[in-house]
Amino acid sequence: MPEPMAGYGNSGKAEGPASHLVIFEPPGIPIESIAGETVLESARRTGIRLVAACGGRGTCRSCYVRVLEGTFDGGEEGDAQRACQIRPISSITVELSARSLSTPERTEVAGTDVPVELAPIIRAVDVSVVPPSLEDRCADAERLAIALEPHGVKLAPLDLEVLHALPLALRRQQWSGTALLSRDTRLVAFAASGTSPLGLAVDFGTTNVAGYLVDLATGRRLAGRGIENLQAGFGSDVVTRITYATRSETGHQNLVRAARQTLSMLTQALCESAKAKPADIVDIVICGNTVMHHLFLGLPVGALGAAPFVAAASGALDFPASELGLGLAPGCFMHLLPGIGGYVGGDHVAALLATRHHHVGGVSLILDIGTNTEISLLREQDEIISISTPSGPALEGGHIACGMRAGEGAVEGVREDGSGGFALTTIGGVPPVGLCGSGVLDAVAAMFRSGAIDRRGRISPDGPATVQLASGRAVKLADPDLFFTQDDIRSVQLAKAAIRAGVDLLLEEGGVGEQEVNRVIVAGAFGAYIDLESTVAIGLLPDIPLERYIQVGNAAGVGARLALLSADEREEAIRLAKRARVLELSGLPQFQKVFFRRIGF
Amino acid sequence: MPEPMAGYGNSGKAEGPASHLVIFEPPGIPIESIAGETVLESARRTGIRLVAACGGRGTCRSCYVRVLEGTFDGGEEGDAQRACQIRPISSITVELSARSLSTPERTEVAGTDVPVELAPIIRAVDVSVVPPSLEDRCADAERLAIALEPHGVKLAPLDLEVLHALPLALRRQQWSGTALLSRDTRLVAFAASGTSPLGLAVDFGTTNVAGYLVDLATGRRLAGRGIENLQAGFGSDVVTRITYATRSETGHQNLVRAARQTLSMLTQALCESAKAKPADIVDIVICGNTVMHHLFLGLPVGALGAAPFVAAASGALDFPASELGLGLAPGCFMHLLPGIGGYVGGDHVAALLATRHHHVGGVSLILDIGTNTEISLLREQDEIISISTPSGPALEGGHIACGMRAGEGAVEGVREDGSGGFALTTIGGVPPVGLCGSGVLDAVAAMFRSGAIDRRGRISPDGPATVQLASGRAVKLADPDLFFTQDDIRSVQLAKAAIRAGVDLLLEEGGVGEQEVNRVIVAGAFGAYIDLESTVAIGLLPDIPLERYIQVGNAAGVGARLALLSADEREEAIRLAKRARVLELSGLPQFQKVFFRRIGF
Repeated sequence: MPEPMAGYGNSGKAEGPASHLVIFEPPGIPIESIAGETVLESARRTGIRLVAACGGRGTCRSCYVRVLEGTFDGGEEGDAQRACQIRPISSITVELSARSLSTPERTEVAGTDVPVELAPIIRAVDVSVVPPSLEDRCADAERLAIALEPHGVKLAPLDLEVLHALPLALRRQQWSGTALLSRDTRLVAFAASGTSPLGLAVDFGTTNVAGYLVDLATGRRLAGRGIENLQAGFGSDVVTRITYATRSETGHQNLVRAARQTLSMLTQALCESAKAKPADIVDIVICGNTVMHHLFLGLPVGALGAAPFVAAASGALDFPASELGLGLAPGCFMHLLPGIGGYVGGDHVAALLATRHHHVGGVSLILDIGTNTEISLLREQDEIISISTPSGPALEGGHIACGMRAGEGAVEGVREDGSGGFALTTIGGVPPVGLCGSGVLDAVAAMFRSGAIDRRGRISPDGPATVQLASGRAVKLADPDLFFTQDDIRSVQLAKAAIRAGVDLLLEEGGVGEQEVNRVIVAGAFGAYIDLESTVAIGLLPDIPLERYIQVGNAAGVGARLALLSADEREEAIRLAKRARVLELSGLPQFQKVFFRRIGF
Repeated sequence: MPEPMAGYGNSGKAEGPASHLVIFEPPGIPIESIAGETVLESARRTGIRLVAACGGRGTCRSCYVRVLEGTFDGGEEGDAQRACQIRPISSITVELSARSLSTPERTEVAGTDVPVELAPIIRAVDVSVVPPSLEDRCADAERLAIALEPHGVKLAPLDLEVLHALPLALRRQQWSGTALLSRDTRLVAFAASGTSPLGLAVDFGTTNVAGYLVDLATGRRLAGRGIENLQAGFGSDVVTRITYATRSETGHQNLVRAARQTLSMLTQALCESAKAKPADIVDIVICGNTVMHHLFLGLPVGALGAAPFVAAASGALDFPASELGLGLAPGCFMHLLPGIGGYVGGDHVAALLATRHHHVGGVSLILDIGTNTEISLLREQDEIISISTPSGPALEGGHIACGMRAGEGAVEGVREDGSGGFALTTIGGVPPVGLCGSGVLDAVAAMFRSGAIDRRGRISPDGPATVQLASGRAVKLADPDLFFTQDDIRSVQLAKAAIRAGVDLLLEEGGVGEQEVNRVIVAGAFGAYIDLESTVAIGLLPDIPLERYIQVGNAAGVGARLALLSADEREEAIRLAKRARVLELSGLPQFQKVFFRRIGF
C-alpha cells in the first residue's frame, strides 16, 4: 500500500518550491526534479516517455501514475494522480501504468515494404593511404585525396566536422580503411575497413515519430521503433505549436529542442536495438509535414501560421547533420523530402512515393491518417491534387480519456457482445488498459451499432452501458474503469468529419464521383489496423466496395526508407512533389458546410 | 593614495575562494571575478586587454597594475602588482598603466597597400520579389530563386543559417532588397536595397591579430585595428600552445575559444570604429601560420607537434562563418589562405602575394618577422624555398621585462647619448613607459655600440648604466625604472640567431651567396619600424647595401585584403603556395651549428 499522502492539500508555498528526488517505477532510477516542475515535466526532461495526450494541460487522464511514496502539491484525493498536475514537496516514488508509459509500438513502425534497387548516395571505398614521413609531409586531407584518385574519386573540399575527425581517424585505422563518400565526392567518414554504412529513415509525425535503421550495403532493416514526439508536451497539433513558437523566441527554441531531442532518443533506441553505434550512421532521410520540417530545422514558422500560409522552403533540403549533435558520422547529411505546399509536406510525398505501385489505373485516393490527415487524388500521368485536413490526435488515441498508444493492453477491436455490453480485443491478449487509435474508431462504430450513441453522437441516457461521471455522461466499455466519454465521441466526430470533408472536396475539385474511385490507399500507423467496415460504417471513408481499399501501414516511413536506399527514389519524390498541387482548406468557403454535413454518423 | 593593502599576506584560504567585484580604472566598469581567478584572468575573461607577455606565468612584468582599493591574496609589497599574481579577497579597484594596457597599434595594422583590380567573390543584385498571396503560396526560398532568374542568377540551395534568416529578411525589406551572392550562386544575405557589402581581412598572428574592415564595392578600407591574440594567455609561442592543446581536450577547447574570442573582439572594435554592423560583413579572409589556422578552426594539432609535423589540411579552406557566432551575414563564409607546409602557413603566402611586385629580378629574400619568422628565397618563375624559424616574442616586445606593445609611450628608438647613457624616442613623444619591438632591437644595438654589452651579449659589470636588480644585472635606459635585463638580451639574441640562421640555411639550400641577393623585403609589424642599420649591426640581417632592403609593414595583412578584394588574388595565392616548398628545420642537422654561430653580435 502506498504511504498516506501527507502532502495532499498542502500548498507548500510558504517555503517556496524546492528540488526533490523523483523515482519512477519502472525503471527505478532516481532523478532530481527542478524546483516547481510537475512530475510529468520531470519525466519528460529525463526521457521517460509518459503519454500526455493533452500535452499536460490536465484535460485528459492519459498520464495517470500511482504515487507509492512521498508528498506532493496539487492533484486529487487518492493515490492515482495525473503526473501533469502534481509537484513533489518531498522525495517521491511513482509507479507508471502500462497505459501511461509509451512503449515501442508495433503499428507505427510497420509499413508494407516495397522492393527497390539499391542505389544509396553513399559509396564505400576501401583505400590505403601512404603514411607521412619526414620526406613526405603532405597534409592529411590532401594525402587522402591523392590516395582516392586511383579509385576514380575526385574528393570535394572537406566539411569542417569531417576535417576535425580525419587526423585521428586516419591514425586509428593505421592509414588503411574505408572512405565513406556521399555522391562520390564528399567524405562522410574514414572508418575501419569493411564498415557497413548505416542509414536512418525518419517519419517525423506531429504526435508519433517512427525511425528505421537500415544497412545501406544490403538494404536490410536492422531496427524499427516509434516514440512520441516530445513536442506533444507543447501542444497536440500543428496550429497550437505554431502559436506557441511565434509567441516567443523561447517557445520556438523549446519546440526545436524537443524535436531534436526526440530524434536523439529515437536514434539511441535504434542503435541499442541493433547493437550499432551512432557514428556508423552516414545518411539520414527525414519526412514530416511542413511545420515539423520547419521546427526540426529551427526555421521560423510565423508565416506558416497566418494567411497566405507560406513556408520558408518546400523543396527537398540537404543539410549537414552535425549540428544535431547526435554523434553521427562527421560528414553525415540529412535529406528532407520535398513538400507539396501549405502543410502538405514531405511525409505525404513519401507516402505517394511508397504507394505508387498500388494504383490500378483510373482514379486513386491516398489517405495518410494522422494528427493532420493528408489526402491526394491521383490519375495516372496527371496532376495530383492534395489536401491537408486537421483531424486531431483522437484517432491516434490522443485526447481520449482512456486513450493510449498501441502498446500491450491497448484495446484494438470492439464488438457488441449482444447483451448491451462490449467484447474487447487487446494487443497482447491481456486485460484492457486503454484504447489505441483503431480501438477508438471501433468503439465508436460498435457504440453506434448497439445504439449506445445516436446518429448525432449523443450518448443514450438510458443505454445499458451508460454511466454518469463527474465530467458528464460516458459509455462503460469494460471494468473497472474503461470509459468512452461524450467528449471523446465529439473528438472522433471532428476527426472523421475533417477527413471525410477533405475527401469530398478533393473529389469535387477533381470532378470525380465517389463510385469512380478505383483504389483507396489507407496509410498511416492508425490506418493499418482500423476495421474498414467500421470506418465506412461511421462515414469516415466512402461507401465503395471494400476490395478497392488497401491498408499499407506507415507508408511515409516506407517512402523515407526508399529515399534512403536509392538516389533515384529521391529524384522520383521530387518529381511527385512537382506533379502535385495543394487544395487549401482556407481557400475553400464550402469546407464548413461539408464538414458539418459529415459530423453525424 | 591607495588604501593600505590589509589583505597582503593573508592567504584567505580558511574561507575558501569566493567571487568579488573587480573594478578596472579605466574603463571603470565593475566585473565579477570567478572564485579563485587572478586579476589578469578576470580582465581577460571580460575583454580587458591587459598585456601579459609571459602568458601570466609571473616571469615578466608586463601586466603591472596599481591596486587603488581592496585586499588580495598573492603579490608583493607595495601597490604596484602583477595582475597575474594576485587574487581578490574583497572587492578591489585596480588602475591599469599605459604599459599594461594594449592599445590599438599603429604598426601592426599598417602595410603598404597595393593597387588591385576589384573582383570580390561577392556580388550584389537588387531584386524585387513578388509577395505571396492566397493564389501564390510558393515558399520563400523558391520565390527568391524565381525572382533572381532574370538577373542571370541560378541560386544554389540555401545554407541552413541563410534559410533561417530569409523569411524575416524578405518581409522586413518588403520583398524588395539586395541579394548578396557569393560566387554568383550562394545567397549570403538578403539586405536592404543599396547595402554596401563589407569584408573582413584578418592576419591572425601568434601574438598579435590585425583586422581590416573593407567596403567590397569600392575597395576602401573603413577601419584597421590590432589586438593581442587572447591565446597568448596560454603560451607565447606555437610549440607551447600545441603542448597545451594536446595535453587535454579542455586545453584544446580553451585555445579554440580564445582564438574565436579574439576575432570577436576585433570584429566588434572594427565595426564600432567604422560605425558598421557585423551583419553587414559578408566575406572573411583569414591568414595565419599553420598552428593558428588549426586552432582557429578547432582542428587537432597533435600531429603538428611531433615529427613528421603533419597538418590536417594545408590547402585553401572555405567554411561557413556562422559557427563563429559573430552575428555576421548568415551566409558569410571564411576563406583561409593556403599554407605551404609545416608551420609555414597562410600568413606567409599572404605576404608573398602582397610583396610579389617588389621583386627586382634575380634573387629576393622575404622575411615576415613575428613570433615565428618565415623567410622565403625566390627567383623569378622558379621554385620558392621557405623556412619557419622560432624567433619568439621578444622582437614584438613580449617576454621583455619592460616590453610593451607599440602604443603611446613605447620606446621605438634608442641612441647613445654620448655620456654613457641613452637618448630615447617614444611613440607620441611622451615620457617612455616601455619598449616596443623596434625599441628592443634599437636598444640592443645601442647598448652594443656603447659597450654596455659585449660581443657575447653580456652586460658590462662596470658600464655607467649598469645596475644590479634582484633578478640580476641590467642596463638602465631611462628613469625611473626602464631597464634592459640580461634575460632580455638573451631573448633578443635567440630571436636574431634564429632568424639569421634561417637566412643562412635558405641561401645555402638555394646555392646563393649573401651578396647575390638583389632584394630583401622585410615584412611584419615589427619589420616596418626597425632601424635597418641597427638590424644589420647586430647581425640579424645580412650586411648588404641598405638600398636593397625594403620595409613593407604588415604584408600578410595586405595579402589578406588583396584576397578579400579579388577572387583572382585568391587563385594567385594558391599558385604561390604550390610553387613553394618548405625547408624543415627539424630535417637540418646543421641548424644548431649555424644558430650558435649567429648568437653573438
